[in-house]
Amino acid sequence: MRKLTMDDAEISSEYGINIGRWSRYSGLGEMPFGAMWCEVPAHGQSSVDSHPEVELAVVVAGDATFTVGEREVAAPPGSAMLLDPHESHVIRARDMPVRILSLYWLPE
Amino acid sequence: MRKLTMDDAEISSEYGINIGRWSRYSGLGEMPFGAMWCEVPAHGQSSVDSHPEVELAVVVAGDATFTVGEREVAAPPGSAMLLDPHESHVIRARDMPVRILSLYWLPE
Repeated sequence: MRKLTMDDAEISSEYGINIGRWSRYSGLGEMPFGAMWCEVPAHGQSSVDSHPEVELAVVVAGDATFTVGEREVAAPPGSAMLLDPHESHVIRARDMPVRILSLYWLPE
Repeated sequence: MRKLTMDDAEISSEYGINIGRWSRYSGLGEMPFGAMWCEVPAHGQSSVDSHPEVELAVVVAGDATFTVGEREVAAPPGSAMLLDPHESHVIRARDMPVRILSLYWLPE
């Protein structure tokens, strides 16, 4: 059993947010997806992101808002947001920082 | 974009806890892992669970305690617990219900 949290990850700033890629952990073994922690500062937002992978963004802290086109969806902790390939999305935080565990994989 | 939460899942009681299997959602597409929501009631615990899959249990609400053998690890929201195949584990909740998104896959 191994416990992973954003606080034990190596963090860098990308896309206007803080990112902790799981590829920097050692000894996790093969996983069928890529993973990273993401933190959007309070009142902040990510830049527009779009990629060929399916993404599952699991909100673990803070009240996030996901925007795709003109659709804006509130995502409190416990929300799992499933994004299609090439679906451009922006993540916003309100009063509190938002923390997300993001998993991504190429569709078959 | 699709928003998934435990509240929109079909829930059944298994292993002493409440389970919402993602296989009951329609139209999610192929995923490279199985997924389910798990809820441990306040002051409750799961039965001992052990399986051939690797499991990644992401705590999204409540303060969980994971026990493997004599090792007991506190897992507040935002903890991702990675369990090896056949690693027997028990999940406990303290004062508040614990909600977990559990992902699992067979190792290569």
